[in-house]
Amino acid sequence: MNILVTGGAGFIGSHTVIELYAAGHTAVVADNLSNSCQESLRRAAQIIGTDTIPFYNVDIRDKAGLQEIFEQHTIDACIHFAGLKAVGESVSKPWEYYDNNIHGTLTLIDALRQHGCKRMIFSSSATVYGEPAEIPITENCPKGTCTNPYGWTKSMLEQILTDLYHSDSAWNIVLLRYFNPIGAHPSGMIGENPNGTPNNLMPYITQVAIGQRPELGIFGNDYPTPDGTGVRDYTHVVDLAKGHVSALSAIERGCGLAIYNLGTGKGYSVLDVVSAFEKASGVKIPYRIKPRRAGDIATCYSDPSKAEKELGWKALNGIEEMCRDSWNWQKKNPAGYICTEQK
Amino acid sequence: MNILVTGGAGFIGSHTVIELYAAGHTAVVADNLSNSCQESLRRAAQIIGTDTIPFYNVDIRDKAGLQEIFEQHTIDACIHFAGLKAVGESVSKPWEYYDNNIHGTLTLIDALRQHGCKRMIFSSSATVYGEPAEIPITENCPKGTCTNPYGWTKSMLEQILTDLYHSDSAWNIVLLRYFNPIGAHPSGMIGENPNGTPNNLMPYITQVAIGQRPELGIFGNDYPTPDGTGVRDYTHVVDLAKGHVSALSAIERGCGLAIYNLGTGKGYSVLDVVSAFEKASGVKIPYRIKPRRAGDIATCYSDPSKAEKELGWKALNGIEEMCRDSWNWQKKNPAGYICTEQK
Repeated sequence: MNILVTGGAGFIGSHTVIELYAAGHTAVVADNLSNSCQESLRRAAQIIGTDTIPFYNVDIRDKAGLQEIFEQHTIDACIHFAGLKAVGESVSKPWEYYDNNIHGTLTLIDALRQHGCKRMIFSSSATVYGEPAEIPITENCPKGTCTNPYGWTKSMLEQILTDLYHSDSAWNIVLLRYFNPIGAHPSGMIGENPNGTPNNLMPYITQVAIGQRPELGIFGNDYPTPDGTGVRDYTHVVDLAKGHVSALSAIERGCGLAIYNLGTGKGYSVLDVVSAFEKASGVKIPYRIKPRRAGDIATCYSDPSKAEKELGWKALNGIEEMCRDSWNWQKKNPAGYICTEQK
Repeated sequence: MNILVTGGAGFIGSHTVIELYAAGHTAVVADNLSNSCQESLRRAAQIIGTDTIPFYNVDIRDKAGLQEIFEQHTIDACIHFAGLKAVGESVSKPWEYYDNNIHGTLTLIDALRQHGCKRMIFSSSATVYGEPAEIPITENCPKGTCTNPYGWTKSMLEQILTDLYHSDSAWNIVLLRYFNPIGAHPSGMIGENPNGTPNNLMPYITQVAIGQRPELGIFGNDYPTPDGTGVRDYTHVVDLAKGHVSALSAIERGCGLAIYNLGTGKGYSVLDVVSAFEKASGVKIPYRIKPRRAGDIATCYSDPSKAEKELGWKALNGIEEMCRDSWNWQKKNPAGYICTEQK
């Protein structure tokens, strides 16, 4: 299939493009490069062994820009990653989050259906569970109250896509709820490339390891967890990327509306990750305990058995591989990508 | 103050324009006439005793159209009624509801803040409470699960406006949760003008009374209510309109973010309303009991004491006046407005 990948130059997007080609698909990438670099796609093309991956510098809110893609390409399905994703920024700039993510997705949906393409895989997040009603979290766990506009955009878009499916069963839609993607392609050629201060744990750790930041801040060590720090279900980005290829097969089989957790089912605390990283890298990570961060929950990990049962997908990499690959990427690219294109 | 009234040609909008002028304000109306007629504003102008009410045929998703309004007028606050509102239609056309209501409101918010106008009254609805956790419903009652896309747009927009306020306290925002507006202006010159088959009880009753429909369908008489039919808090549209003027004063006083129920606090069953209407009109309303309608709840009425305490607002009209004025409007306008403008 030929897949429109929105946000395909980003962290999960670029890894997914590689796995799409590895599975015999092709991709057309639409990305406004607001938080990504086209360099990721040049490198992805090298890994794939293709000359180039079709790329459009387009904002998904731009109807005419999307129209042009559909005029140039036959699109069989869309994997929709595009969206703003920084929790803290979403609190200070909610309008931008709602407009980019919701207005953007509505514009994308309209372009898709106008071109008879009613197949979408949507990047959702474990954040839609709020303070989860059960651990491990199954897909039957009720959605909860989000603590920030970023989370709300994911939760609202799940509702919008669900209502869309109920109004027109010609759609096949998979909502993938990610659990803390980390790691990088084992080649070290592509990986996570945060803008400014990282919002997430692993890129912060690797930047400390490489000497760009003096120490890691850990937000709270008084949570009701074994060592007091927050427990999360870290998932290797390559496993996550492969999950999208599996979801695509479900869409081809006519899955209707389906929801899957993509996680490992294992919870690691912040201190667990620090130790695992130190072991994988041989580098000591100095850290300082800071106050809890508003909106953080104690423990969040998935029950990923539904994806295994129905998609045949299972995370293959453990915390060691995640740390190894994150560190490999950071060492080979101390400053991340060098972005040459205009923002 | 000079108030931008979006959806100002509609049922609640046109009544509110009159009350704004009565309170010494002026209005600029923006309406795309998708479900309304400019005739309502010509009549409102007559009632007010003004030559004309400034009117723009503009869709709130149209940036340039909104821009023109702000170039021509100084706007002190916005009362935002514009939006699609038919529950059943929202299930079959969810994209249109999310795009009109959410993308539309986001575009409106951006135009407002770009012109330094950070004051908005938003048309919300009791529907955001879902199956209410307590009766009568206070504003502290948690929001619930909506049963249709229309309801979700209201609930989501409340969240978006709340997040907007938390990001920028220069905003003053009032969320008004309406409880079943019925009635009409006592002059009988303006009133509810449904497109096609009415979705709501009162216009259906008045169309039966005038002989346009053979009988009223009542959806379920086995609810846990005194007579088995659903109980609602019907509110006279003129009272509701005055509630907006009161909310405007709160905004002038710098209320920050505030939420008010606008209802009477009294619950009437469908059969109560039928009897009250028969008494007010002298016309018998034949009815037939039909199966329950998906998504309907048994009982919903407000505790309106917060609006009385903080806004000094209280519904003055009872069910008799509501029936009288609905019937007066229908009798004087058997076919509603005659819309002359192109849709």
